Amino acid sequence: MSEMTVTPWEVKGEIDYNRLIEEFGLNLINEKLEAKLKKYLGDNLFLRRKIFFVHRDLDFILNEFEKGNKFYLYTGRGPSGHTHIGHLIPWIFTKQLQDAFKTKLIFQLTDDEKFLFSDKLSIEEVENFTKENILDIIAVGFDPENTEIYTDLVNSKTLYKQAVRVAKKITFSTTKAVFGFNNSTNVGKIFFTSMQAVPAFIESVKQNKNIPCLIPHAIDQDAHFRIARDILPKLGYYKPASIQCQFIPGLTGSGKMSASDPNSTVYTTDSEKDIEKKIKKAFTGGRETIEEQKKLGGNPDICPIFKYYFFLFEKDDKKLEDRFKACKTGKLMCGECKLQLIPRIQKFIKEHQKKREKAKEIFNEFIVKD
Amino acid sequence: MSEMTVTPWEVKGEIDYNRLIEEFGLNLINEKLEAKLKKYLGDNLFLRRKIFFVHRDLDFILNEFEKGNKFYLYTGRGPSGHTHIGHLIPWIFTKQLQDAFKTKLIFQLTDDEKFLFSDKLSIEEVENFTKENILDIIAVGFDPENTEIYTDLVNSKTLYKQAVRVAKKITFSTTKAVFGFNNSTNVGKIFFTSMQAVPAFIESVKQNKNIPCLIPHAIDQDAHFRIARDILPKLGYYKPASIQCQFIPGLTGSGKMSASDPNSTVYTTDSEKDIEKKIKKAFTGGRETIEEQKKLGGNPDICPIFKYYFFLFEKDDKKLEDRFKACKTGKLMCGECKLQLIPRIQKFIKEHQKKREKAKEIFNEFIVKD
Repeated sequence: MSEMTVTPWEVKGEIDYNRLIEEFGLNLINEKLEAKLKKYLGDNLFLRRKIFFVHRDLDFILNEFEKGNKFYLYTGRGPSGHTHIGHLIPWIFTKQLQDAFKTKLIFQLTDDEKFLFSDKLSIEEVENFTKENILDIIAVGFDPENTEIYTDLVNSKTLYKQAVRVAKKITFSTTKAVFGFNNSTNVGKIFFTSMQAVPAFIESVKQNKNIPCLIPHAIDQDAHFRIARDILPKLGYYKPASIQCQFIPGLTGSGKMSASDPNSTVYTTDSEKDIEKKIKKAFTGGRETIEEQKKLGGNPDICPIFKYYFFLFEKDDKKLEDRFKACKTGKLMCGECKLQLIPRIQKFIKEHQKKREKAKEIFNEFIVKD
Repeated sequence: MSEMTVTPWEVKGEIDYNRLIEEFGLNLINEKLEAKLKKYLGDNLFLRRKIFFVHRDLDFILNEFEKGNKFYLYTGRGPSGHTHIGHLIPWIFTKQLQDAFKTKLIFQLTDDEKFLFSDKLSIEEVENFTKENILDIIAVGFDPENTEIYTDLVNSKTLYKQAVRVAKKITFSTTKAVFGFNNSTNVGKIFFTSMQAVPAFIESVKQNKNIPCLIPHAIDQDAHFRIARDILPKLGYYKPASIQCQFIPGLTGSGKMSASDPNSTVYTTDSEKDIEKKIKKAFTGGRETIEEQKKLGGNPDICPIFKYYFFLFEKDDKKLEDRFKACKTGKLMCGECKLQLIPRIQKFIKEHQKKREKAKEIFNEFIVKD
């Protein structure tokens, strides 16, 4: 079994979510909490399937909300490449939260991070991906009246000033322990987590009162917010709460999708042909030969194609279960299963691309001017 | 003899300038260089008296200038308190350089630094000192057409973006070695030197060509620019050159003036009465009793009162020498020497305060909008 690594900058190996829950100190979303969320969200695929499955202080957020103390949402994106389907999952869920709770959303683009942590990317390249990624964010359908996009190198006037307040409370020791930094880590990386903490209290700064913040994000970002939860109360703010999701696995085998291997994922900028090619080439839970598979059945549990259905492309639980059984019992071959998936992804991406085009017209409505 | 410490954040003990020259690797301004400077500056008190006494690459700056490749000036101020006479020395010399060479000047206010390195100051207090200090800077008489004042927390949009380029090239090891940081240093301090490096190449960024930069500063800031000289060529810019001055000693005894001990210095905001009180209370090179001093003479070499004459308040070399001799031979008593100094300082500060009032009217002309 491959060694697992899950940090904000690297996810590799087979992901053992139970181990992450224990190591990070996360809480499972229990039935009571899920029921409480359902009151607002209605039936929700991501919760029902436990794609969003762990949290910190979500109960606090909902209790405060019910007392009339409304939270705001914060999520983000590191613009190191084009947006792929894996990124869209937490964004779609975040939009559902925004719609259900009618809350403000702060979206942060960490262009400084992606420059500081990359051996190859220039600032100009990161700036270009930032603009491309923002189109995808807007395409997800966030409320323009209630959504603000901050970009670290664009909105430094607002962000850096607050980041130094955070930075003053974080020692190098802490970043060593949490991120594994050492003496040869560059000083920009060491500082960076302070920037990622800022959107978790920027609304409290702007409105000059303490406002709860809920951060929907993929589990690999937890390290940043563990630090933020330590520091923010020292500055007089609530600990940020979070609701965290699993990764959609890479098409080439394991880990999360990787922006550095274009075959491991479907980008929002892919053509119909790209999608067809990638899905056809994808790793599956199938057997070596068709004969063997007919006899022994496939393994949907390790199959990224099945996961695609599970995460986004088969919303009907009964049909998903049928597909699972048909695979397990050797009735559904990988080729056929892939051919059924391809048009669903193509349709999804095509619709996204239309919204992405329209996003260009309302781009400026989302951008914070400071 | 007291242990000497000279870092950007602490100067204490008796300053051994020869040791600093050796430890920092600085060059004395030799006769040839002084003569070359004189061509532009004319006779200059600060050079003649070796108050500005060491440099890095000043020869390069002057050679390039003579080839038509004009440099710009950069200096700065950490706004941790009110401005005092010690701060004005390098500013006055910088103005003389600006006038002589008709060059652009970039002035940086490091409010982030003073917040990050202080146990007591709030951001609001530092912001207040920033505004107060800028009035003093303007009062020195810099050319409004050719001077730009950047404040780190105000102009972060311009500065932070360039600082991450610098930060990416500096490891924690380097900051440990140069500044003596350790595991419990906060991550804002660790990052900060990247911000101080930016004005040394910001004109090159803005004009999109490589422009030499000369930094007049007090010797305690050398550590920052040693790092900047390592990093900037890696980004394609010239190593910043410098011309560095001694500290005017504190009125209470040794080291440089300290903003934390109000009696050790004269502030630009002091009243005539404050000045009189501080000078009368000041440490001198005098003897225990008048009788003894008449017999043995005083010691002007260790006397801050004599240094005040030397640095700023006796421009006539002959008269300064006479004063020196009169002290040494027991003809001039400390009380009298102080009484002669008080009105000179009062006059100087009063004139400065007038210009400081006028500075309020042209304040905005100096401030960079980004």
